[in-house]
Amino acid sequence: MTTFQRARIEAGDRTLEGIYYTSEAIFERERQMITRRHWLCVGRAEQLQSPGAYFLVDVDGESLIIVRGHDGAIRAFYNVCRHRGTRLCRSGEGQFSGTIRCPYHAWSYRFDGSLVSAPHMDEVPDFDIAHWPLVGCAIAEWEGFLWVNLDSEAQAFEQAMAPLVGRFAPWQLDRLRRGAHIHYEVAANWKMIFENYSECYHCPPIHPGLVPLSPADSGRNDFLSGPILGGYMSVQPGAGLTTSGRRSRPAVGTVSGADLERAYYYTFFPNLLFSLHPDYAMVHSLWPEAVDRTRIVCEWYFDPTEMAKPDFDASDAVLFWDEINRQDWQICERTQQGVRSSAYRPGPYAQREGLAAAFDREYLRVLG
Amino acid sequence: MTTFQRARIEAGDRTLEGIYYTSEAIFERERQMITRRHWLCVGRAEQLQSPGAYFLVDVDGESLIIVRGHDGAIRAFYNVCRHRGTRLCRSGEGQFSGTIRCPYHAWSYRFDGSLVSAPHMDEVPDFDIAHWPLVGCAIAEWEGFLWVNLDSEAQAFEQAMAPLVGRFAPWQLDRLRRGAHIHYEVAANWKMIFENYSECYHCPPIHPGLVPLSPADSGRNDFLSGPILGGYMSVQPGAGLTTSGRRSRPAVGTVSGADLERAYYYTFFPNLLFSLHPDYAMVHSLWPEAVDRTRIVCEWYFDPTEMAKPDFDASDAVLFWDEINRQDWQICERTQQGVRSSAYRPGPYAQREGLAAAFDREYLRVLG
Amino acid sequence: MTTFQRARIEAGDRTLEGIYYTSEAIFERERQMITRRHWLCVGRAEQLQSPGAYFLVDVDGESLIIVRGHDGAIRAFYNVCRHRGTRLCRSGEGQFSGTIRCPYHAWSYRFDGSLVSAPHMDEVPDFDIAHWPLVGCAIAEWEGFLWVNLDSEAQAFEQAMAPLVGRFAPWQLDRLRRGAHIHYEVAANWKMIFENYSECYHCPPIHPGLVPLSPADSGRNDFLSGPILGGYMSVQPGAGLTTSGRRSRPAVGTVSGADLERAYYYTFFPNLLFSLHPDYAMVHSLWPEAVDRTRIVCEWYFDPTEMAKPDFDASDAVLFWDEINRQDWQICERTQQGVRSSAYRPGPYAQREGLAAAFDREYLRVLG
Repeated sequence: MTTFQRARIEAGDRTLEGIYYTSEAIFERERQMITRRHWLCVGRAEQLQSPGAYFLVDVDGESLIIVRGHDGAIRAFYNVCRHRGTRLCRSGEGQFSGTIRCPYHAWSYRFDGSLVSAPHMDEVPDFDIAHWPLVGCAIAEWEGFLWVNLDSEAQAFEQAMAPLVGRFAPWQLDRLRRGAHIHYEVAANWKMIFENYSECYHCPPIHPGLVPLSPADSGRNDFLSGPILGGYMSVQPGAGLTTSGRRSRPAVGTVSGADLERAYYYTFFPNLLFSLHPDYAMVHSLWPEAVDRTRIVCEWYFDPTEMAKPDFDASDAVLFWDEINRQDWQICERTQQGVRSSAYRPGPYAQREGLAAAFDREYLRVLG
Repeated sequence: MTTFQRARIEAGDRTLEGIYYTSEAIFERERQMITRRHWLCVGRAEQLQSPGAYFLVDVDGESLIIVRGHDGAIRAFYNVCRHRGTRLCRSGEGQFSGTIRCPYHAWSYRFDGSLVSAPHMDEVPDFDIAHWPLVGCAIAEWEGFLWVNLDSEAQAFEQAMAPLVGRFAPWQLDRLRRGAHIHYEVAANWKMIFENYSECYHCPPIHPGLVPLSPADSGRNDFLSGPILGGYMSVQPGAGLTTSGRRSRPAVGTVSGADLERAYYYTFFPNLLFSLHPDYAMVHSLWPEAVDRTRIVCEWYFDPTEMAKPDFDASDAVLFWDEINRQDWQICERTQQGVRSSAYRPGPYAQREGLAAAFDREYLRVLG
Repeated sequence: MTTFQRARIEAGDRTLEGIYYTSEAIFERERQMITRRHWLCVGRAEQLQSPGAYFLVDVDGESLIIVRGHDGAIRAFYNVCRHRGTRLCRSGEGQFSGTIRCPYHAWSYRFDGSLVSAPHMDEVPDFDIAHWPLVGCAIAEWEGFLWVNLDSEAQAFEQAMAPLVGRFAPWQLDRLRRGAHIHYEVAANWKMIFENYSECYHCPPIHPGLVPLSPADSGRNDFLSGPILGGYMSVQPGAGLTTSGRRSRPAVGTVSGADLERAYYYTFFPNLLFSLHPDYAMVHSLWPEAVDRTRIVCEWYFDPTEMAKPDFDASDAVLFWDEINRQDWQICERTQQGVRSSAYRPGPYAQREGLAAAFDREYLRVLG
């Protein structure tokens, strides 16, 4: 069983220097050292039901084809023809029929990436069709979530994210299905979103509707350092984090006992905010678009048995968090505006911001 | 008494090289050496009537809070919370009630900038509330005009702008009140606006409506070098620079004698064009937004006694100058387009462009 | 008589590295080494019928005035006043009356560029009006087409483009007149447009309507290396490259024999695609606007005798090629998207892409 405790602030712990939120050079370094070297969650295995089913994702400007093969395996390929470099596929998701065919000169690839046909290339001396497969990208699956890593020498997912293996079993996350999602564009640096999620010191001023249901100073943390950080906050007995203030669905999986009165909040470095409630899971994926702009996809996952019921309604959870989300994004945008100033300098963290400080430490370690 | 004379052009005096109007690197150096080191006019003292009254200004991307304190003093602060850097205030002007309070974690500051409340920070070892006041910015008042200087080691306003102290007494500028203002966006470098204002060689082709009222070659200059440049032009007896061609208001303050048939035009380096007419003052504030884009605020100031009259109407002065302004901005934009060319090279100044050449010299001296 | 043959691919011939399509630094070098040093086609002599007739062109951000003089000669001048640099002229085409007059301070120039009037400059010591003519730009005429070269030390057009002199005589190109034109904005690097035009390997997948009229593997090339590349493709007996599939006009000039069943396609480095059909000529001018954006003007030229007929209708040729054009631009845009990927690396050219490889070689040679 996990030991929960508080993250502690030492005297002198300060927020990050302003350049980390504003410098194009730092953002470029983050792209090289973080975005292109870490495992990033991009979707769910259930999106690909049959061989040839695919979806596209855009990771740091790279278009990737995620496709299920005839052998059932899910693979990731760069969306680039080996001949002239043409983008092979433009539709966001669908089903390939037979092969992945380039529209320009009709070069065709199997779902495992191998080149199967290249018209007239037999006229070229020394051309060997076996030498020109699609370029692949590392991919992994955890609890139904699909992760890619643009680093061809990436550490295996199970090692890089070892603390996740076997965790959260009661929620049976691989069984859950997406019931709702919202896209946000936030005019703030991605790290500000992490830091905001990592503390509830801001909850009384910013989320007056949340505090009565889940006290701002409740709970404990179990991950205090490293790529995974977080813990739980208590939810008032009988309450639920919904618009009605009550939990309206049965717990998912085998969630029981104390977990019925807790909300677990974790950050998975560098692109996921992971929230577990008794009756649903909520996942924020963060996609840095510029040093001061982040695209966020928020998704809500429910038990498919519940979703199949005719009166299933996700809106009590979705609308509750959509309001919280918008409150957070707005204050992050306002903080982004402030840290651009030459007058900004690192400020003192409060005790209740221990995880934000831990996130900063992990970030600085990885940035190198 | 002031001695007026002509600014003279020597053989070989040339316009600036094209890079001064087009180079991003030069623009960046201007930001460091000029915008962030000189006194800039940002508003009027009468905008702040009572303690807690404030307005925001944006200077080179810095948001500043200009606020009147309980002691009656007007101060300027960077709009940045000392905790996480959040922008404290977003409304352009208003009245603080009690304190300046950060919305993120409720840190609160007095109108003199001192931190008065920081929730839960007593839990942090060695935190001292006295060490975290708002960061201040130099501010000065002259004839009711408020000036700020982002340079924390700036020369005092009275020294830097010494020639202004005690000048223009007959106009009683601190008594005047703003009767109208217009914002312009001009696709030209800010220096081109100064150079254009500094000569009337262009008046016959560009301002055919102005020349009959105020001959293009009339007048004399009293400031021929340094940060303040300019002099007067004659206005035809009985005429006024208005749409009717007549002066429709009594003179302001104690303006009398020769000044009733003169218009005074001054440039205050680096952001003000200062025009004094017998019955009103006109002020252009220039805000460089890019190497080829300048925001200009033109304001007209009148005697408050006149303004209080039921039939007061500023439009004869405003519309007259709005047309002149637009003629000037258009030809400046056209000149900006030309100097981008690799075929542009410095051209010969005419005698009548002596103040433009003097402005260029001061500019080059300051740029270093 | 010309010898036609196939351009051959050697084993190992590869497409260009991705940086040539994506790097701002390469694009900047292209501006210096290519756009500003080569002859670029900008219009036709018949646009300027009488002395003082002019049109403006924009070449790499330089506005040029192309004007016919009283001596009948056509000249090119930078659109920049020698005094303050003002853009002299803004209307795209027209007729100067008497002089080219700057609107700012009324400096005036003759159509041969000499300064004729500069008010009050006689007051300036040592000013000599003869020293301040407009800055000229090299210009040449070939078969009615006007070409400029921003390089003041440019090789003469007749040397630089020697293979063109005396070519294409049967088409009597100087007699033809423009019957239609279309502007396109394409989100692809300009070289991709050249490479696309240089091969018909893509014709079966991309242009299914073209192949039945003109087989993709027909024809031969006569220019296999250097700044001019291309040759002909066969058109089916009795067919024409129009929406009806038939040729609906008499041949132009003295075109006869085998040329009646051929379409000639040439690339003139670096900005022209030159297509000759029995009954019309089609010209694409390419203007790189960014590393990933090109403006293209496509023009169709016909015999003026045909154009004078009341039932003259260019649409069968225009609509046919407009569709082909759009198919090409779309696949080029898609290829531009692909080569941005870090996974893109040079791919193997097919035999049928020999001219694309030859274009790449000429390009790399010129880029230096």
